[in-house]
Amino acid sequence: MTLSMYQASAPRFVHTLHALAAILDKAQAYCDAKKIDPLALTGFRLYPDMLPFTRQISIACDTAKGAVARLAGVEIPKHEDTEKTFPELKARIAKTVDFIGGVKAAQIDGSEDRPIVLKLRGNEVNFTGLSYLLGFALPNFYFHAVTAYDILRHNGVELGKRDFLGG
Amino acid sequence: MTLSMYQASAPRFVHTLHALAAILDKAQAYCDAKKIDPLALTGFRLYPDMLPFTRQISIACDTAKGAVARLAGVEIPKHEDTEKTFPELKARIAKTVDFIGGVKAAQIDGSEDRPIVLKLRGNEVNFTGLSYLLGFALPNFYFHAVTAYDILRHNGVELGKRDFLGG
Repeated sequence: MTLSMYQASAPRFVHTLHALAAILDKAQAYCDAKKIDPLALTGFRLYPDMLPFTRQISIACDTAKGAVARLAGVEIPKHEDTEKTFPELKARIAKTVDFIGGVKAAQIDGSEDRPIVLKLRGNEVNFTGLSYLLGFALPNFYFHAVTAYDILRHNGVELGKRDFLGG
Repeated sequence: MTLSMYQASAPRFVHTLHALAAILDKAQAYCDAKKIDPLALTGFRLYPDMLPFTRQISIACDTAKGAVARLAGVEIPKHEDTEKTFPELKARIAKTVDFIGGVKAAQIDGSEDRPIVLKLRGNEVNFTGLSYLLGFALPNFYFHAVTAYDILRHNGVELGKRDFLGG
């Protein structure tokens, strides 16, 4: 088997998104058991000028769907950022996983040299498919996914690295 | 250009390790400016049963060097976990980057099917080079690198995602 752009992207995003969905279940169960308002967790920020938990999840989702769509050369589906609760965030993840699942390996494989232009802080940044996936999409995705995990851990939700890495 | 096992591993680890080294400089400067004992940050945990900052950095380093060594089929250099200060952690990162820099693309490329066996929590887990890199080494590396970043952000060090993604 040879490493391909598809293997390095779509199934990896889906794997971690499934792990995050299971983590959201544990967070909801923790709130139920401890009689904690779930909004205290979903709105939590590790520092006042950091993004809250909800946005860590939605940006992880957007990074995954944006990467898969751009590499495949298809339109990026628009998902509004309206989620406040754990079930709503799970639905956001499910929508993202559904979209990714509809993209075939053949649409992404061979996208190494595809020109990809992002607007970052008002500036156009030029990537190839390869530099975009490895240098932007994957680290950005993990950045938000891990920060979501860290927010829950910091608040006492009983999780371990195995929950993040997935089964 | 075709995606390869080398491109997906060694240069990505090095890129993020360089970003972490620059982040350590900012953390040291923050301590100097605010007259904070740096050990208050390097020993900080986001939750009592999580690992402290020092170990987040050293495990990120170990994950990177272990991945590169295993994929290349060379011995993993042993680095003791003795670091307590930011300069010591920078030296740990530099050692790791030096080791990775000495491994050539040709040693890693084609390692997709290489059998890799890890002992995790006492159980042997069998990977191929491909499943190990994408499903274990990269997410594990980012897990610890992002948690290190989150610890510093939580403590007020002025960082942004750009510091993590690297220039």
